[in-house]
Amino acid sequence: MSKTYKVDGMTCGGCAASVQKAIVAAVPGAVVSIDLPTARVTVEAGAVEDTAIQKAVEDAGFDYAGTV
Amino acid sequence: MSKTYKVDGMTCGGCAASVQKAIVAAVPGAVVSIDLPTARVTVEAGAVEDTAIQKAVEDAGFDYAGTV
Repeated sequence: MSKTYKVDGMTCGGCAASVQKAIVAAVPGAVVSIDLPTARVTVEAGAVEDTAIQKAVEDAGFDYAGTV
Repeated sequence: MSKTYKVDGMTCGGCAASVQKAIVAAVPGAVVSIDLPTARVTVEAGAVEDTAIQKAVEDAGFDYAGTV
């Protein structure tokens, strides 16, 4: 399955890499695609729990703004 | 006490803010100062455990390179 979230606070490729690593750490095997200009983060995995994504994003210091 | 660490992978203010938030979440009340050009992160708190800092930095997707 694939879900897309809005994550605020990412301002460069380093930020995007940080969010990507945090999500993969929380959801092993996930494929994470990030579009910086729109702040969209797409997660593809067998199961994607919004709460797990929110925790990973917030623990990494960024702002989880829900699914889109 | 105050300890300084080298953290690689921070490329903008958003990255620095991410590391700062992650460390404060791990060490409540810590005062975190970050100098991007030198990749130095200084943490002031009652007690600063290197392992806690390392985990916070790595969970946020950045590279902990030890104390300096």
